[in-house]
Amino acid sequence: MRLNAVLYGLGAHEAAWRMPESDPLAVTKLPFWVDVAQRAEAAGFDALFLGDVLTLQAGADRHLSDAMDPIVIMSALAAVTSRIGLIATASTSFDHPFHLARRFACLDHISGGRAGWNIVTSSNALEARNFGLDAMPDHAERYARAADVVDAVVALWDSWDADAKIADQQSGQYLDLSRIRRVDHQGPFVRTAGPLNVPRPPQGRPMLAQAGSSEAGRAFAAARADIVFTVQSDLTAAQAFYRDVKARAVKAGRDPDDLCILPGIVPIAAATKAEAEARLAELNGFAVLDHLIAKGSEFLGVDLSRLDLDAPLPDGLMNGVGNQASQSRVEVLVGIAQREDLTVRQLLARLASGRGHLLAVGTGAEIADLKEEWLDSKAADGFNVMCPVLPGDLQRFACHVMPILHQRGLTVS
Amino acid sequence: MRLNAVLYGLGAHEAAWRMPESDPLAVTKLPFWVDVAQRAEAAGFDALFLGDVLTLQAGADRHLSDAMDPIVIMSALAAVTSRIGLIATASTSFDHPFHLARRFACLDHISGGRAGWNIVTSSNALEARNFGLDAMPDHAERYARAADVVDAVVALWDSWDADAKIADQQSGQYLDLSRIRRVDHQGPFVRTAGPLNVPRPPQGRPMLAQAGSSEAGRAFAAARADIVFTVQSDLTAAQAFYRDVKARAVKAGRDPDDLCILPGIVPIAAATKAEAEARLAELNGFAVLDHLIAKGSEFLGVDLSRLDLDAPLPDGLMNGVGNQASQSRVEVLVGIAQREDLTVRQLLARLASGRGHLLAVGTGAEIADLKEEWLDSKAADGFNVMCPVLPGDLQRFACHVMPILHQRGLTVS
Repeated sequence: MRLNAVLYGLGAHEAAWRMPESDPLAVTKLPFWVDVAQRAEAAGFDALFLGDVLTLQAGADRHLSDAMDPIVIMSALAAVTSRIGLIATASTSFDHPFHLARRFACLDHISGGRAGWNIVTSSNALEARNFGLDAMPDHAERYARAADVVDAVVALWDSWDADAKIADQQSGQYLDLSRIRRVDHQGPFVRTAGPLNVPRPPQGRPMLAQAGSSEAGRAFAAARADIVFTVQSDLTAAQAFYRDVKARAVKAGRDPDDLCILPGIVPIAAATKAEAEARLAELNGFAVLDHLIAKGSEFLGVDLSRLDLDAPLPDGLMNGVGNQASQSRVEVLVGIAQREDLTVRQLLARLASGRGHLLAVGTGAEIADLKEEWLDSKAADGFNVMCPVLPGDLQRFACHVMPILHQRGLTVS
Repeated sequence: MRLNAVLYGLGAHEAAWRMPESDPLAVTKLPFWVDVAQRAEAAGFDALFLGDVLTLQAGADRHLSDAMDPIVIMSALAAVTSRIGLIATASTSFDHPFHLARRFACLDHISGGRAGWNIVTSSNALEARNFGLDAMPDHAERYARAADVVDAVVALWDSWDADAKIADQQSGQYLDLSRIRRVDHQGPFVRTAGPLNVPRPPQGRPMLAQAGSSEAGRAFAAARADIVFTVQSDLTAAQAFYRDVKARAVKAGRDPDDLCILPGIVPIAAATKAEAEARLAELNGFAVLDHLIAKGSEFLGVDLSRLDLDAPLPDGLMNGVGNQASQSRVEVLVGIAQREDLTVRQLLARLASGRGHLLAVGTGAEIADLKEEWLDSKAADGFNVMCPVLPGDLQRFACHVMPILHQRGLTVS
């Protein structure tokens, strides 16, 4: 069971920054990140994961909105960790493959082979305007560019054989140029001559992660990714996604075991189920209702402020809303509301605690059972663990859940 | 006297990697960088400086040619140092100001206000081809773009007031949007809407460094840079450069003391002058003559292999060679050869030991005297210290030179 620890600001819960245990000024400073990373490493997580968005988002005045550059944070964390993977998000839409290939190669070098690149295409019009565009290219074009950029990046990593750096002090020969090749990548979107200007990274090719759920996203992930992130909160739907992506990988000529599917999970672990539920209630109590209504309205693309908060979502409300980039997330949330018969107010609380990801509230054994069930049911190869508050809920997870996973032989370390 | 420690691979001397004390495989790994950085910090240097080039260069098979990404290295070093400045090179020709502004802001945040950006425009055709161009734009256009990019970066840093992040846990207000502004930079080369997605960096504006010596380069530095790097090996020429750039700063409406001029210096310090000279001879003995002839020919733009190595450079040899980007460096080297009446072989040794930068070989007191003379003569505000071998010659500098500079009250710490 592969487990990534998601570094989501001060935690994945909307109210994380308002909790008395949190210091919202810490999130731009290094000690906070070092503390979380070292706790995750000590607990036995396989990797740290840091998402990204290239703009201040709507509602930034009400939500934790500092978006630290993932490559800066992960490079710093490489210096204070020794074993855990470092997966940093970078967009293919606004950067050149030479920069991307080199940065991830260098992160891989300084971390001794622990770098991963979470490939995103960016979908927000505000991001486009920060990079001089009037709007984002459409979904298909963004994915076509992503494929072109990733091909160029991989070609640059491959431009050095692993043994090209000789560094023979006696003869004075530094490189064997016969083991280094130009790339001359001439794609529809990007060109690069190469070779790269750093030796082949220790992993050869740093790990590739991706999270698209659309048709194009699944095809991309199946062909290129080592790790696929996904939003799933229903076992049956997760199994269908898992089957579909693995089948696509086989069609693309890959061993399906080389592709690791990781749904997000929001764990709230405690000694008893009642304590865990009390913790969730405490967290939800710190979320500001007006902020959630605004965020939920934006997220779902409908005005929730006009609805009765204590009634279910009206039938047909969601018809035709949502765009291609967010469609799968909207479907997940509406599915949760219907399956669990939630009122609008309850749905908003669910949105606050992990935005539609699988919510696991209970004892260590209960959370471990849920994870094991998803693994055994072929719904997941592991999880992207999104702790509601960092480092508090990470520590709870380490204390209550990790020992049970270790006992059951479900983790590597 | 401001002192930067230049992280130049395994050292500024051509033969650094061939020295028995060096491990050429260490340069892609973190412990080497951490060791050098911590020694420089302990010795009292003001900042670390890391240059960059975005291609594997000609002759890469014979010279240390791993070019680690400066932002990756400096982010890692932020985690293992506490006081020393971190100056990373990044080109304005191949990156977008939103990325640049954000990365240096984040480096400034995680280092507690220690980030500096060394602004380069890139001049190598191989770099252009790595980024999909057939050739570099001409010198004037590169500088025009650099000005545009730097203006946009500074505007993005300025898009947040220092007190815009409120993070009031009680009220739930995270940002005061009235203290955050859009940028809407629409320059001739780059556009960005802004604002930035991270709070204003601790320094407000991270330090800007620049090294242009051409007319456009001097004008750019005088208007925008906090630190100017320069290649000088003659006191009179250095004084003229110093006067010129300071006068330009005044004309640009700046206090000339706000701009710090740092020539490069290659120090070889020992207990006696004879020992220092023996160290230089030892270093030069490890340089491969054929490699130096090839490198010198490329550097000067003339074929040195046809010349008598034990005769002076022929008169008029250099007329009309060199391009705009390298002109000042060629002039410095030819000036050294003429002033010191060097043979071609001796000039090649000089090229090997710091490529035309001021070479200071002697006791701690002698090197301190030289530095103090340059300061008192208004030829420098400090130095970019380019140790021939890292960490060996940095440690010698720390032992022999630093205590004397401290005694004389010439350093801050």
